[in-house]
Amino acid sequence: MYKKNQPTSYTLGITLTIELLKTHPELVKMIYCHPEYTGEGLEKIIELVYANGIKMTVGTKIFNTLSQKENCYVIGEFTKFDNPIVKENNHLVLVNPSDAGNMGTIMRSAVGFGFNDLVIITPAVDHYNPKVVRSSMGAIFHLRISTYESFETYLNDNLPHDYFPFMLKAKASLNWEFIPRSAKPVALIFGNEATGLPDSFLNVGTPLIINHSKAIDSLNLPTAVGIALYEFSKNVFKSKSE
Amino acid sequence: MYKKNQPTSYTLGITLTIELLKTHPELVKMIYCHPEYTGEGLEKIIELVYANGIKMTVGTKIFNTLSQKENCYVIGEFTKFDNPIVKENNHLVLVNPSDAGNMGTIMRSAVGFGFNDLVIITPAVDHYNPKVVRSSMGAIFHLRISTYESFETYLNDNLPHDYFPFMLKAKASLNWEFIPRSAKPVALIFGNEATGLPDSFLNVGTPLIINHSKAIDSLNLPTAVGIALYEFSKNVFKSKSE
Repeated sequence: MYKKNQPTSYTLGITLTIELLKTHPELVKMIYCHPEYTGEGLEKIIELVYANGIKMTVGTKIFNTLSQKENCYVIGEFTKFDNPIVKENNHLVLVNPSDAGNMGTIMRSAVGFGFNDLVIITPAVDHYNPKVVRSSMGAIFHLRISTYESFETYLNDNLPHDYFPFMLKAKASLNWEFIPRSAKPVALIFGNEATGLPDSFLNVGTPLIINHSKAIDSLNLPTAVGIALYEFSKNVFKSKSE
Repeated sequence: MYKKNQPTSYTLGITLTIELLKTHPELVKMIYCHPEYTGEGLEKIIELVYANGIKMTVGTKIFNTLSQKENCYVIGEFTKFDNPIVKENNHLVLVNPSDAGNMGTIMRSAVGFGFNDLVIITPAVDHYNPKVVRSSMGAIFHLRISTYESFETYLNDNLPHDYFPFMLKAKASLNWEFIPRSAKPVALIFGNEATGLPDSFLNVGTPLIINHSKAIDSLNLPTAVGIALYEFSKNVFKSKSE
């Protein structure tokens, strides 16, 4: 059973574990391999384990404890690491995100659209939860992440950004033609899945809404974040080559 | 336990059940209410149940069978209905979608961006699975849906569209400036979560890719669909008032 306050987390699955071994071999404590596994990717795992002098063990116990998924045959255990955001980069700010699967999906989009600096305002789901790691498809290993206890603490600790809170009550619509441009980096800010951002964010920067029909109450959070990242990376940042 | 071939499906949760009662009261067979539930929304449920002459029962059995979520206190049972797509409307086409949560999330975006006609090419996850209904947040009740055994069968049964298969191998990028415009309706086509669309779709219409960094293999499917729907509804269809 994974616990939030333990010093390590896990990659559940072969592709994810290969991504871990490729990006952060120095953090890997152990690779666990299921005795029944003989499939694709095993040679690659062994090659990476050998090249980096990592320990590997074969057994079933950890699979029964950690993984509810039937198709998980390789698990990597890695030390949680501190890789804080760069203060002057563009930021993606999640205020009180509560769902592990959503957070992983958002990480995947953030890396995909070149927003490699993620801010998490607590209380929030533990971003090292194996479910987050898994649904990020390894994107977590490409991110810098900082957590803050409040939005104010985040503001005080960073350089000024152009702030864009995404809110259903916003008057301006997301559309690149209307995105104000300045020399400052941008911070895209999203609230909790169920409650959104508090009204106080209407006084922060330029609140934006992604227009949608009245037949739905709101867009799914990772979908909304993906659309915003797509629009901002397309029009403000021409390069996606990072 | 829900089974694909049974004539009814379920709304798990109070908000979802209210949406069912509002949009399709004629389909509701029974409302199940947990004896411990006294919270918000109960009066609204009772009002709608009474106004439509629907049966309501109090008990715990169905909750233990159907719902893994702790916060589910109301369940609606409704008859599956046939509401086929309109042949000349814009279509969203999902080829072999396999994940229930993803399909529901995609339904939510489709309704949000005015694509109310959904095509599913089988084999695919049962779109009446309660997990789909739940993650659609009720959007399924605003959709017309048709399933076909193959893309060819879909083509033969519908009027010509401008086809846009979304593929990592596509040469053209999604960007409204480059979207060809014609008098024909559009069909946005997406493949399976793990495998994408087969290469044969490179010869269908205008294949498009949503550009992203090389640090990720692909975008999450509902995120990619959401971005495409956003872009097409913004620039091809000015009205989102449906």
